[in-house]
Amino acid sequence: MYYYPPSIQDLIKNFARLPGIGEKTAERFAMYLLRAPRREAEQLARSILELKEKIRLCSVCFSLSDEDLCRICREPSRDTGLLCVVENPADMASIEKSGAFKGRYHVLSGALSPMDGIGPDDIRIKELVARVEQGGIQEVFIATGTSVEGEATAAYLFDVLESFPVKVTRIASGVPIGGDLKYVDQLTLKRAIDMRRSMSRK
Amino acid sequence: MYYYPPSIQDLIKNFARLPGIGEKTAERFAMYLLRAPRREAEQLARSILELKEKIRLCSVCFSLSDEDLCRICREPSRDTGLLCVVENPADMASIEKSGAFKGRYHVLSGALSPMDGIGPDDIRIKELVARVEQGGIQEVFIATGTSVEGEATAAYLFDVLESFPVKVTRIASGVPIGGDLKYVDQLTLKRAIDMRRSMSRK
Repeated sequence: MYYYPPSIQDLIKNFARLPGIGEKTAERFAMYLLRAPRREAEQLARSILELKEKIRLCSVCFSLSDEDLCRICREPSRDTGLLCVVENPADMASIEKSGAFKGRYHVLSGALSPMDGIGPDDIRIKELVARVEQGGIQEVFIATGTSVEGEATAAYLFDVLESFPVKVTRIASGVPIGGDLKYVDQLTLKRAIDMRRSMSRK
Repeated sequence: MYYYPPSIQDLIKNFARLPGIGEKTAERFAMYLLRAPRREAEQLARSILELKEKIRLCSVCFSLSDEDLCRICREPSRDTGLLCVVENPADMASIEKSGAFKGRYHVLSGALSPMDGIGPDDIRIKELVARVEQGGIQEVFIATGTSVEGEATAAYLFDVLESFPVKVTRIASGVPIGGDLKYVDQLTLKRAIDMRRSMSRK
């Protein structure tokens, strides 16, 4: 990389820190920005700085927000009786993308992982319980991942919430839509068989 | 993308302008920067801005430089009698990476392409001729690409430089090292056969 002037070397080094980006791709980014209009480069730089300045966590659901209350918590059309628990903002974004959920969220900021020293006090379980205790919630829909940690978190939450007068549901696991059965891993297939549902009305 | 706060949406949109980066990867970059230390994000933003402020073209060879004269033109150990002509700074970086060239460079900033309206006056051929006219150069090594445009540029340069007392050479074409012959395209193979060299001393 020594064959580039220092300012390009710096930029390549910094781009290469982004996930999945090697030196080669970072170099392409730098060459692209060199040719791009100055305004475009400035916009990118400014939006990186603004991200760090503006983003905070919603004071109610702990999702990412530019304001004290996130857009979803402010939206009056959302079902306040239905609460979806996710591990992180990216999972929440995926669910929003699907358009299939009209309730509100609770972002745990992680999953239980004793191996990594993450216990119930390290993720926002206390805050979830406080929201349930406040009342008005009929269903807590647990959409943590289906990894060992996600499943353990779901089981733990179910135990904690059992004593409250709320319905606790879990996101369904099974064969992805449009997927060929022969490409589905065995654990998923086993789950999809165990959870099979009746098609007849009998 | 509406499910993210505006400052994240902006950043995703700006990242997605980088070559080869879609919305999904741009989203990953944004999530990474959210978790990254503030200093790291600031470094990236600053290096983008500095790129646009500092980078200029070397006044002698037209390569990218932070100063009036690029590092290679300043290097006293470089062979000033050997001049390598490349299309762009990235090609120059590739040659430097190989470590096989110890002369100086001349960056054309493009290749002849009548289809795109790029003629001899649109790339730095005049400046190349001026350098050769100044004297001191024994060999002009043409390392433009092997595309139609690169070949046309090489042929044009050869015509222009023929009247000068310099040796004009062209980068060799052939089968890539470590390549399996069956994966080499027919044009390259044809060239490699036409250009075959004698292994015996006869």
